[in-house]
Amino acid sequence: MRLEFYDTTLRDGAQAAGIAFSVADKRQIFSLLENIGMDYIEGGDPASNPKDAEFFAELSAPRLVAFGATRRKDSAPENDAGLAALIASGAERVCIFGKASRSQAEEVLGVTPEQNLTMISESVSYLRARGKKVIFDAEHFYDGFREDRKYALAALMAAYMSGADTLVLCDTNGGSSPEDAYEFTRVAADTFGGATVGVHFHNDTGVAVANSLAAVKAGATHVQGTFLGFGERCGNANLSTVIADLVLKEGAECGIMLPELTRTAHALAEICNIPLDPAMPYVGSAAFAHKAGMHADAVIKNAHTFEHISPAAVGNKERILLSEMAGRSAVAKKLENFFPSLDKHSPKIKEILDMVKLLEMKGYQFENADGSFVLLAERVLGAFEPSFKLVGYKITAQKPGGVNRAEVTIDVGGEHSSAAETGNGPVNALDKALRTALTRRFPELREVVLTDYKVRVVESSGATDAMVRVLITSSDKKESWTTVGVSTDIVEASWQALADSFEYKLTGQCRVV
Amino acid sequence: MRLEFYDTTLRDGAQAAGIAFSVADKRQIFSLLENIGMDYIEGGDPASNPKDAEFFAELSAPRLVAFGATRRKDSAPENDAGLAALIASGAERVCIFGKASRSQAEEVLGVTPEQNLTMISESVSYLRARGKKVIFDAEHFYDGFREDRKYALAALMAAYMSGADTLVLCDTNGGSSPEDAYEFTRVAADTFGGATVGVHFHNDTGVAVANSLAAVKAGATHVQGTFLGFGERCGNANLSTVIADLVLKEGAECGIMLPELTRTAHALAEICNIPLDPAMPYVGSAAFAHKAGMHADAVIKNAHTFEHISPAAVGNKERILLSEMAGRSAVAKKLENFFPSLDKHSPKIKEILDMVKLLEMKGYQFENADGSFVLLAERVLGAFEPSFKLVGYKITAQKPGGVNRAEVTIDVGGEHSSAAETGNGPVNALDKALRTALTRRFPELREVVLTDYKVRVVESSGATDAMVRVLITSSDKKESWTTVGVSTDIVEASWQALADSFEYKLTGQCRVV
Repeated sequence: MRLEFYDTTLRDGAQAAGIAFSVADKRQIFSLLENIGMDYIEGGDPASNPKDAEFFAELSAPRLVAFGATRRKDSAPENDAGLAALIASGAERVCIFGKASRSQAEEVLGVTPEQNLTMISESVSYLRARGKKVIFDAEHFYDGFREDRKYALAALMAAYMSGADTLVLCDTNGGSSPEDAYEFTRVAADTFGGATVGVHFHNDTGVAVANSLAAVKAGATHVQGTFLGFGERCGNANLSTVIADLVLKEGAECGIMLPELTRTAHALAEICNIPLDPAMPYVGSAAFAHKAGMHADAVIKNAHTFEHISPAAVGNKERILLSEMAGRSAVAKKLENFFPSLDKHSPKIKEILDMVKLLEMKGYQFENADGSFVLLAERVLGAFEPSFKLVGYKITAQKPGGVNRAEVTIDVGGEHSSAAETGNGPVNALDKALRTALTRRFPELREVVLTDYKVRVVESSGATDAMVRVLITSSDKKESWTTVGVSTDIVEASWQALADSFEYKLTGQCRVV
Repeated sequence: MRLEFYDTTLRDGAQAAGIAFSVADKRQIFSLLENIGMDYIEGGDPASNPKDAEFFAELSAPRLVAFGATRRKDSAPENDAGLAALIASGAERVCIFGKASRSQAEEVLGVTPEQNLTMISESVSYLRARGKKVIFDAEHFYDGFREDRKYALAALMAAYMSGADTLVLCDTNGGSSPEDAYEFTRVAADTFGGATVGVHFHNDTGVAVANSLAAVKAGATHVQGTFLGFGERCGNANLSTVIADLVLKEGAECGIMLPELTRTAHALAEICNIPLDPAMPYVGSAAFAHKAGMHADAVIKNAHTFEHISPAAVGNKERILLSEMAGRSAVAKKLENFFPSLDKHSPKIKEILDMVKLLEMKGYQFENADGSFVLLAERVLGAFEPSFKLVGYKITAQKPGGVNRAEVTIDVGGEHSSAAETGNGPVNALDKALRTALTRRFPELREVVLTDYKVRVVESSGATDAMVRVLITSSDKKESWTTVGVSTDIVEASWQALADSFEYKLTGQCRVV
């Protein structure tokens, strides 16, 4: 069974709240999807806005599809601006939507059911006559089928008889169940053996992926969706999930390069400027992450105990998360690069674990703070020799004047080094002053940059005297690490995370990585 | 068909990457779930960490369930620390997991299949004999059934014959399909007519919701999951979605108050300090959002054209995005309590809307900051008379010594009022000093308390000079309100939110509420 996949991130995806693509974004996304082997990539509606028109004017590619509607009720095909834009788009293949629901045609379009069928057939014929290949998106197919199945099938027939080679059954409101997805698709697939039958599901009841799988079982061979599931309201069927399910679980064949799945998902999220859900099936950063002590132990023994597939099949990898729930194995595993001789039965491992648990009770979080975790382990193991000590800091912030000034004095091998800097805020000033005081003695710190700074209130019931957790991510040219600090005082919490960040780099020279 | 729902946010949910609950968080989540009518609320594993032990020691409630494992292979039930912790927990009902897979018992536990069955029956009997009601979580049931169905059923039988009243089939690896979920559940439900048969799905293939629905069709009447779908790896079945699907689409009966679904989801996400996915079915802020254009027009004509249910059924509402008119209506709607005579066509409404858009571009967020929104509107409408003005503040934080001191001078009706206070951190000191300076002049502020303080980094790419958004919630005896401040400087952002908070209270005397 060879399946084809159709991505509409650039059109349905752009309907999601909070998403807006520039033409450059669209080009980059197109090329990502092309590279992974997506069969069809919908570029947008060239009639709807100048951005989409520009995108089509610049791009010519066999996988590109232009999207539009059947002609308006009161214009002949040759006078219809939407159809003209589809022809002008230059795309070899177009996808047009028309209504497959009798009541929707009457209530929303204000036409008779027969006029709606004529709109479909005239539009498809017109596009075919001008050399386009045509995909027909049957809007509201599932609701329409439930209401009047003969009419829903008549809409498909109108498109098919006029030359559409692919008939796509759309669950436009996203309210259909997997049973209906199977049943109604089977009827369409049985009726239109000569066409490619496709499906397009929305996730309003949380079953868009399951509906797509059910429809493929019922005979659909073309699946529409968006690579990361973005789309109007609750989104579209998540294609990265659907594809992996069909290939890895059902043995389907397709042109998608599965080992590129994770990389493509992350690159796409980056362009969309949204954080990729860590829990997204197959591609999320936590999709193969294990936190509970027992689970992590079992996975280390035998990966298939808590992994339904090998993460490498989709280009992802296993992660062991540290927390108060972690066990000894997780700690030993995490440290094996640094202390290869450390055995999981060593009492030191227990000591490290107890320290993690104790600190997490106080609001620390080591799961994402690998840098601080390594330093903690080194401290417990007696392998830590601090490169510097804080003698003191003093911060002043005042308004008006807006001056935020920090003075820092540190002790490096018995000698004091002081620096004062101003900054955008008290923490920024502290960061700059510490950096100045340190680089004077450790020029290698010049290549360290702060790449992320996060603040969370841990217990917010105490209002402004609540505990604050600061996470800082730093990197040099080779590596990136995260450190953590916790205090009721944001300056003190930031200090801890900053100091750990520099210590991680400085003591790293004697670390085996 | 009366279904029961079992929420494991406090245990499986805590396994999600990035989630860490304090004991206070756990208490708040428990109470949210109790209030919406959740049948069972798993509180955690009292043997695994001190936090869970503390939680159980403090709480006693009929819906509370303690979670644990069958006895260890080498300890008698009466010497098993895990079982002892379950008994000591005080919970009337416990849930224990045991393996329903032959290979997992052999490979992971290192016991014979028969020893595993003995571990299950002895553990259940022991707990029953000590007065506990027992739910048995059959770990790896679906994979185990696929491998050796007789053995998987024997594991259930061991628990059932020893007195477990609820047998839960777990898809521990999350790799099962809706077909298997239906088929295997049907066999278990047919075999154990006298027990409650439950299911527990993970979302590794994106079908945990669909699997839960299929299992209920097959005869399961108890569904486990987490309210927002958080959980290990790709998460658990999202109970808010499963419950709404079953009640609204399948006509199931249960004790959950559906109109509270959206409010509960948002409150829970807030406690977890994670942004709720706007696309989450039923409860997301975009679940019923329509972007301007054809869909929005159609929805205004006839809501069912693009809405599969009425949003009010789950306590959510329709949103029309990016539509000028809708924006105006929303602003007018929000202000109708304060300015009942303000018409949505007034040019002032447009001015307020433009100001909101401009400030949101800069990082402000008014969706949750009603207090600041009302002040903004009052400023635009010329209805705002400031009660005080900042003359200046000066903050010093220093270490060692740990002194955080703030001096604040404000101008009240032309007279200066100054105060200096020390605090746990610079923001806490600022809060106290402002409060002292103000209450001297406005004794009514004594009844105002800060109930919540949140910090978010808005753009985190700039590291410690990134924009910071502070949200402060305050309340007096009658009302609660939230205010917002944004700056690169956390002290300045906190100042804005603090000042707005007091202004909201002070100018409130002339406000019609």
